[in-house]
Amino acid sequence: MIYFNNDYSEGCHEKILDALIRTNMEQTPGYGEDAYCKGAAEKIRRLCGREDLAVHFLVGGTQANLTVIDAALRPHQGALCAVSGHIHAHETGAVEATGHKVLTVPSADGKITATQVAQAVKAHRTDASFEHMVQPKLVYISNPTELGTLYTKEELTALADTCHGLGLYLFLDGARLGYGLAAKGNDVTLADIARLCDVFYIGGTKVGALFGEAVVIGNPALAEDFRYLIKQHGGMLAKGRLLGVQFDALMEDGLYFQIAEKADRLADQIRDTLAELGVPMLVPGITNQLFPILPDGILAELAKKYVFCEQERVDESHRAVRFCTSWATRPENVEELCRDLRGLCR
Amino acid sequence: MIYFNNDYSEGCHEKILDALIRTNMEQTPGYGEDAYCKGAAEKIRRLCGREDLAVHFLVGGTQANLTVIDAALRPHQGALCAVSGHIHAHETGAVEATGHKVLTVPSADGKITATQVAQAVKAHRTDASFEHMVQPKLVYISNPTELGTLYTKEELTALADTCHGLGLYLFLDGARLGYGLAAKGNDVTLADIARLCDVFYIGGTKVGALFGEAVVIGNPALAEDFRYLIKQHGGMLAKGRLLGVQFDALMEDGLYFQIAEKADRLADQIRDTLAELGVPMLVPGITNQLFPILPDGILAELAKKYVFCEQERVDESHRAVRFCTSWATRPENVEELCRDLRGLCR
Amino acid sequence: MIYFNNDYSEGCHEKILDALIRTNMEQTPGYGEDAYCKGAAEKIRRLCGREDLAVHFLVGGTQANLTVIDAALRPHQGALCAVSGHIHAHETGAVEATGHKVLTVPSADGKITATQVAQAVKAHRTDASFEHMVQPKLVYISNPTELGTLYTKEELTALADTCHGLGLYLFLDGARLGYGLAAKGNDVTLADIARLCDVFYIGGTKVGALFGEAVVIGNPALAEDFRYLIKQHGGMLAKGRLLGVQFDALMEDGLYFQIAEKADRLADQIRDTLAELGVPMLVPGITNQLFPILPDGILAELAKKYVFCEQERVDESHRAVRFCTSWATRPENVEELCRDLRGLCR
Amino acid sequence: MIYFNNDYSEGCHEKILDALIRTNMEQTPGYGEDAYCKGAAEKIRRLCGREDLAVHFLVGGTQANLTVIDAALRPHQGALCAVSGHIHAHETGAVEATGHKVLTVPSADGKITATQVAQAVKAHRTDASFEHMVQPKLVYISNPTELGTLYTKEELTALADTCHGLGLYLFLDGARLGYGLAAKGNDVTLADIARLCDVFYIGGTKVGALFGEAVVIGNPALAEDFRYLIKQHGGMLAKGRLLGVQFDALMEDGLYFQIAEKADRLADQIRDTLAELGVPMLVPGITNQLFPILPDGILAELAKKYVFCEQERVDESHRAVRFCTSWATRPENVEELCRDLRGLCR
Repeated sequence: MIYFNNDYSEGCHEKILDALIRTNMEQTPGYGEDAYCKGAAEKIRRLCGREDLAVHFLVGGTQANLTVIDAALRPHQGALCAVSGHIHAHETGAVEATGHKVLTVPSADGKITATQVAQAVKAHRTDASFEHMVQPKLVYISNPTELGTLYTKEELTALADTCHGLGLYLFLDGARLGYGLAAKGNDVTLADIARLCDVFYIGGTKVGALFGEAVVIGNPALAEDFRYLIKQHGGMLAKGRLLGVQFDALMEDGLYFQIAEKADRLADQIRDTLAELGVPMLVPGITNQLFPILPDGILAELAKKYVFCEQERVDESHRAVRFCTSWATRPENVEELCRDLRGLCR
Repeated sequence: MIYFNNDYSEGCHEKILDALIRTNMEQTPGYGEDAYCKGAAEKIRRLCGREDLAVHFLVGGTQANLTVIDAALRPHQGALCAVSGHIHAHETGAVEATGHKVLTVPSADGKITATQVAQAVKAHRTDASFEHMVQPKLVYISNPTELGTLYTKEELTALADTCHGLGLYLFLDGARLGYGLAAKGNDVTLADIARLCDVFYIGGTKVGALFGEAVVIGNPALAEDFRYLIKQHGGMLAKGRLLGVQFDALMEDGLYFQIAEKADRLADQIRDTLAELGVPMLVPGITNQLFPILPDGILAELAKKYVFCEQERVDESHRAVRFCTSWATRPENVEELCRDLRGLCR
Repeated sequence: MIYFNNDYSEGCHEKILDALIRTNMEQTPGYGEDAYCKGAAEKIRRLCGREDLAVHFLVGGTQANLTVIDAALRPHQGALCAVSGHIHAHETGAVEATGHKVLTVPSADGKITATQVAQAVKAHRTDASFEHMVQPKLVYISNPTELGTLYTKEELTALADTCHGLGLYLFLDGARLGYGLAAKGNDVTLADIARLCDVFYIGGTKVGALFGEAVVIGNPALAEDFRYLIKQHGGMLAKGRLLGVQFDALMEDGLYFQIAEKADRLADQIRDTLAELGVPMLVPGITNQLFPILPDGILAELAKKYVFCEQERVDESHRAVRFCTSWATRPENVEELCRDLRGLCR
Repeated sequence: MIYFNNDYSEGCHEKILDALIRTNMEQTPGYGEDAYCKGAAEKIRRLCGREDLAVHFLVGGTQANLTVIDAALRPHQGALCAVSGHIHAHETGAVEATGHKVLTVPSADGKITATQVAQAVKAHRTDASFEHMVQPKLVYISNPTELGTLYTKEELTALADTCHGLGLYLFLDGARLGYGLAAKGNDVTLADIARLCDVFYIGGTKVGALFGEAVVIGNPALAEDFRYLIKQHGGMLAKGRLLGVQFDALMEDGLYFQIAEKADRLADQIRDTLAELGVPMLVPGITNQLFPILPDGILAELAKKYVFCEQERVDESHRAVRFCTSWATRPENVEELCRDLRGLCR
């Protein structure tokens, strides 16, 4: 079988593996206070163009989301997000388990708009019973979104302006950030994100690392005592340097961006093939995730050879599915898939 | 001004006040372990037709909701309810503050159906990533709902059968239960509720008491150690007998049902007048809450003399508002309102 | 039987009852936004000598404690208190249920010292693994303490200075504050407490009211959005005016202080009798609680006629017990008790 | 510098590293549902001599502790442990953050006894105000303890019998379990632990792995839906196979036990040297942790060449410190340390 079902089926990029092997028997301080973590954080600060950023390395996305949100909010405050937001849909109530409500707004493409945020906040503040409702205080977005869509610089700027104008934090979940930054048509840079968001993270797990998300905090109000929160939520690795070593390698000589770019170009190849064949997409996307809508019959054929994800049933005879490329995808497999699609869809 | 804005503007019914005055200087054990609480619980058991029910008296509805739900659920489990459900919409995230997600299903009239519950549970259980989502374990309904609608015996039976067939608890918020039971057209009895629900409460705050909700637990799994939970959530009154005394009076000689009936009949009078005038209603209702849709101009006139609640804007020139009667509503005020409506709407 | 077991066996003082009766059928806004709550808050501000205080009325002590502490702390912060502190010993983990650890220091008399606070904070801050421990951020004291002892102005000033010098909040649980203020030998005024503490409450439940604690917040950082927290924790009474009416009566013409004084003088009478008889006390106290150490035989005799509380076994033949007076204690019962003590202990 | 400060300074054992390298580019299902996790779980079941055990792999100890305890307890229940217990002392209130109180009993050597448990439970159950206190429901022990001491089979059996007789769960934190099992004088086997405890874990992080703790659940009541809890607390690794691969290697051909044994024998060498020199120990221990009490002067000399941990000041001129060996400790470093100790302490 050829796997296109997700971007976390393999271990890590060889350069990261080399770094882990090379440093394996070094003795370092525990709990993320080693030189590798410091070095990786420094590289991230440089790439973001801000020397004042706090950088912490966490093991996974759900952990990063719950720790950041719990650190940011007072008990009566909630996180506003798209109904498809990962914290709402796929984290077993991790945010609620810290006591906070997730407040959703509708979204067809995984994104939310500055206008939606402004309206939700206005609706809260003008309601006579506002104290009987959870106060929106943080906006959670994912970029790329769960549907593979991307915010433009204009959209992100509007969101940031709206949030800050209203006294809300903007938090960007970048579990697949690399694939977003490397997408053709993307106009947002890491420095833009660091400038516009109060806090965000650079996903490693899905972009070449064994595991790890680099949480980057630009707003000092959110940075205070953050390590206590990491420890309290079970996110402080005794051998914290494992995260530092990996991100140090990822951020060295643009590795992170190169491997994301490779994955995006392979996805583009599939995307172009699907377009050429007139296959409709559930949502338009430009990153490493594709959501084609295909007839059940063709999907049954494809499933004999390829592994992909079910997304949703579209009508009686069609389903939207997800194909993913990753840093580890082999070009010959993409070519084979395109060939097979051409054979089946024509 | 004449108040029709809610059913908790006054103190308590005179018979309750008399009971409080009469017992004021008695010395009783604290924390709800007095004879009045025992007596009131016994009366409730008799009215429910079940000797095995656990009965606890809590101060208010939000407190009752959060305590019951927290007692019932394990950390990864959530409460399913209508999007208009009080726990979702108007309790400042009280349920989430205990760590549990509220899972919503759409509803136009405040009710949810057995089919919706079955579908939600099936969707959860058949999802490949079910462990990444909150597990539905309890269904929360309010009866009457927040929109003044009522479940029929058939609907409630279907809900209970579905819940129990799927291993879920059914929890009925009866903050306004009296007004539901006394409604013309209602076919559900207290005994039905006690038989069908795992846990429910009989609202006192809005039906004649100063405060108090009688939580009735039929499912022994939910009854265990319940008093610890009450104490932990700050709901155990030192002078717990205040609740016992009030419910003892309410349950004496059918007082609870009589005063609810009076309020419902007064609401019927307004309802009939509105129907006669062709005023449309936001939702059809038969209890003490009415949600007429009226032109802004008429509402402005009414607002000079009457206090009512804003519900929602319906179109550019019409709003739905809420009028409430209660145990304390004076018939002459209802007559005056009907007269004025006739004058304005004709 | 004659009850000396606690100070919450009866209902409320007749003046409060009169106020409740008088206002019973008035229509007021709900949720504590009525004129009685405003009036009572204003009286409290005046008695405290500070116009900038935020005043909120909650139903009970555990509720007040958990709401204040949850409002004050970030997730990794804890409340420091005596090992005998009510939040640690007798609230079923209410504070922990909001996610916060209670950090204890030893205490023989129910009080903690400024030195203990300074040492605990220093120990935390100088520990190499400080981020692996809960950060002390709030000091919880009760005054009178659970053992009936009182802080002197000097002690309270030292505690406040230490807390504020170290960036901690000082929170005083005044469930029995009236009995403390009226005690012979007490040198702390309500204005002192309002000046020295960041937040405290004036207990009504045990000092003449049916229920109710007036939370007084002097530190604006703790006051922000406090009503959301009350609602979230189920502490917002629909008929909030019940609390306002009661505190308005309590604070009128010094009623609160008079009834506490009466109880204290009656306790003094018992205390003098015990001293005269050479009965040792578990702790020295000057308020309405007494903890004499008596032989089992005498306690068995007393138990035939009086109800009192078991405190702890002192040795094979002696136990410490608690006798309480209250606003409702009848002088003739005190005289009878003293007579009987003289008869038994001589 | 030569490091004896802890057992997590290096990466992982070479056999584990080899396994990670070998499997790096394999494609496996995510979230711990791969063949490596299954295989490792199977090996653990076999070593424990029970086919019915549920085995889950978590990243670290704090995460394992909070997830297990949150899964086991209802909201009003708490975990009983020694005052030195890791969950009480060094996890930033992780257990409290899940809403549960940690209930401590005194301990000089890190262990608690069956008698202490029985007394604490009896004290709770016989207290008139038991519902005002947190209910003890789980006993947390660490073996080896935080002070390097070990439970004997007799002690562990007594604890288990007491717990089960009283309806409590017994949970053993085995972060350093390997070093305990391999200790000279230890009479407890993995099978004993699996038989006596309701749940325990086999620590990998400190015994040869990069990270990872294998949670082993013998009591079905604790096993239900455990993966939801892992996900909710951010403990479910996308590339879960990393844990499976590591534990598969650790449990292959007794590797786990061999490397622990090596560390223990090296610790014995230091222990024998200290004994020979008459150096007192803070607590008697037989595992890889040593707590000698040494004069400040000698410690200052040692600190020039060796890194060790401060434990506590014993008197004006002596401190207890911690020396640790591990799977990675080099014999020549141990010899050098022994030589230097002989030179300094004679």
